Amino acid sequence: MASPPRRGEFRLIAELFAPLATHPGARGLVDDCAYLAPAPGEELVLKTDAVVCGIDFMSDAMPEHVAAKALRINLSDLAAKGATPVGYLQTLGLPRDGSIDDAWLERYALGLAEDQARFGIALLGGDITATDGPFWASITVFGTLPCGTAPLRANAKVGERVFVTGTIGDAALGLAVRRGGYKPNAKDAAFLVDRYDLPQPRLAQGLALRGVARAAADVSDGLVADLGHIAEASGVAIDIQAPRVPLSDAARRAVAADATWLPRLLAGGDDYEIVFTAAMDPPADAGAVEIGRVVAGQGVTVRDATGQPMRFARAGYEHF
Amino acid sequence: MASPPRRGEFRLIAELFAPLATHPGARGLVDDCAYLAPAPGEELVLKTDAVVCGIDFMSDAMPEHVAAKALRINLSDLAAKGATPVGYLQTLGLPRDGSIDDAWLERYALGLAEDQARFGIALLGGDITATDGPFWASITVFGTLPCGTAPLRANAKVGERVFVTGTIGDAALGLAVRRGGYKPNAKDAAFLVDRYDLPQPRLAQGLALRGVARAAADVSDGLVADLGHIAEASGVAIDIQAPRVPLSDAARRAVAADATWLPRLLAGGDDYEIVFTAAMDPPADAGAVEIGRVVAGQGVTVRDATGQPMRFARAGYEHF
Repeated sequence: MASPPRRGEFRLIAELFAPLATHPGARGLVDDCAYLAPAPGEELVLKTDAVVCGIDFMSDAMPEHVAAKALRINLSDLAAKGATPVGYLQTLGLPRDGSIDDAWLERYALGLAEDQARFGIALLGGDITATDGPFWASITVFGTLPCGTAPLRANAKVGERVFVTGTIGDAALGLAVRRGGYKPNAKDAAFLVDRYDLPQPRLAQGLALRGVARAAADVSDGLVADLGHIAEASGVAIDIQAPRVPLSDAARRAVAADATWLPRLLAGGDDYEIVFTAAMDPPADAGAVEIGRVVAGQGVTVRDATGQPMRFARAGYEHF
Repeated sequence: MASPPRRGEFRLIAELFAPLATHPGARGLVDDCAYLAPAPGEELVLKTDAVVCGIDFMSDAMPEHVAAKALRINLSDLAAKGATPVGYLQTLGLPRDGSIDDAWLERYALGLAEDQARFGIALLGGDITATDGPFWASITVFGTLPCGTAPLRANAKVGERVFVTGTIGDAALGLAVRRGGYKPNAKDAAFLVDRYDLPQPRLAQGLALRGVARAAADVSDGLVADLGHIAEASGVAIDIQAPRVPLSDAARRAVAADATWLPRLLAGGDDYEIVFTAAMDPPADAGAVEIGRVVAGQGVTVRDATGQPMRFARAGYEHF
C-alpha cells in the first residue's frame, strides 16, 4: 500500500536535496535563503514554470523524466535568450494521499542530479509543502547574460528574417502517440514520445546565437502561437512559409499519411526549439533554418506551398 | 454555479498581472523571461515558498489575505536577513473544477497590489498552470544585501546573546481560535486570528539589525524549531529563558487561563518575527528582546522560571 514519504520535510531536504545544492549560494540548504550575484556587467535571466501531474505529465511517467521536464521547460527559456544557466530553486507539492512515495522521490532527485551534471547547474534552494491534490513541482531557473543583450520578444524589426532550430511538431505527435490518436511504426513512436517526454533545451544553440538573434523565444506554446507573441510584442507581422519549416523524418511520414497533421504540428506545442529573428545569417552550429520574414502589419501568416494562408483551428496553447 | 476563469491564461496575465509588473526587469510581462541585476557590491537574496489551499489557508479565506500571506511568508525570510526587497516571481496552480473564479482572482491580484505598495516590490514574472487539485501559489522573492553580509543560520557563536522581535505565539493561538480549540474574548480573538492570517514581515527591523545580527532566521516553524536550525547549522547550543520570551497581552491571558499554552506557543509556528544572535545591544528601533544565550553544546534548552528545562511534545513544524 502506498504511504506518504516517511522521511518528513527535514530528512527529505537533508538526504535527497542537500546533495544537489552544490552551488555556493545554496549554503548547502542549511540557511533559509539562497544568495546569488552575477559577475560585473552581467544580469540574471529569470524564468519560472511548473509541472503538474495529470496536466504536464501522466501519473505513470518516470520520476526521472518528470524531474528532467520540470528543469528543461525552464532551461529552454534561458536557451532562447542565449543565457548561461547557473542554478534553480524548486518548490514541491507532495500529495498527502501517498501517491508519491520515498522511492518515487529518490528517482526524482536522481533525475535532477543527472540534469544538473548535463547542464552545469545546481540546486540553490527550495521548499516542500503538502497538498490534497496531485504532485506538482514549481521551478525557478537563473542564468546570466551580458547586461542588456537579451533577444527580447519585443525586439523584432521589419525586414529581419525568421529562423527556427531543430524540428517542429515531434512533441505534438508524441503526445498523440501517448494518447492513442496516432499509431506510427515502433521506431517513430519511440522517437516522437521521447521528444514529448524529454525536451532538449537548445542551450548551445542559444549561446551560438548571441549577438545574432534579435528577438527570440522558445517554442513551447506552439510555433504559430510563439511567433504570434513575438509579432504582438514587437508590433510587426510575421510571414512564414510552411514548406520551409523543418520536420523530422517521423513527422514527414505523419504528414505524408495525413496532410491534416501539418497545421496541427505547426500549432502544436512543447517543441522547445528556438525561434528567432535575425538580420544576418546565423552560424552553422546553431542548426537553424530560415522559415520566413518579419513584415509590416500584425499577426502571423503561414503560407502553404502555393502561397495561400493556412487556417488553424487553434492558434496556440493556453495552459489554463 | 462556479466556473473556471473565463479569461484564459493570456487574458489573466494581461488584465490582472501585467499591471503589477512595474519593475523594469519584468518587461511588462511581454517577454518570456525576467531580468535582474543587483547594484555593484550587492548580492541577491532568494527565497521560495508556496501556499496551498487546505494546508496554508482555508478555502473560505479572503483572496486578498491569501495573496498577502503568499508574499509575506517569503518577505519575512528577506527581513530576517536584513535584505531590501525588490520583486517576486509567481506561479499559480488554478483548479479546473472552477473553485477559483474570475472574481476570486481579481481580489487576489488586488491583495498583491496592496502589498506591492506596502513593501515596495513589484511582480517580475510568472506562470499560470492548471491543476486537478486545490489552488496553490508558489512565490520566489528577491532582495538585495551588500555582498557577504547576510546573518546566516550558521553564523552563531558561543557567547552571543539571543533576541527576538515582536511577540511569540499569537499565530498559534489564532489558528486554535480558527479551529475552535481556543475561545477568548472577541477582541483577543480578532487580534490573534489576524496574526495568523496576516504575517507582518519585519523588514524595517531587519534593516535596523544590519551589522548587528550575526545569525538570524524568521520564526516560521516555531521559536524552538527555528532556534534549533540555528543551533544545528552553527554547531552550538542555545539556552532560552521562557519567562523572557515576549508575549502579547492576548497570549498572556491565554497562558494565565491555561499554563499548558506556554510550551505550545513557544513551539508553535507562523510568528514571522526575527530571532537572531548578537554580540552587541540591538538598536531600540528593532524592537527586540533578549531571551537567551548561545552556549557550547548542541540543541535548544528552554528553561522555565525555576531554571528547569521545559518539555515539548513537538519540536517544530514540518510542512509535510
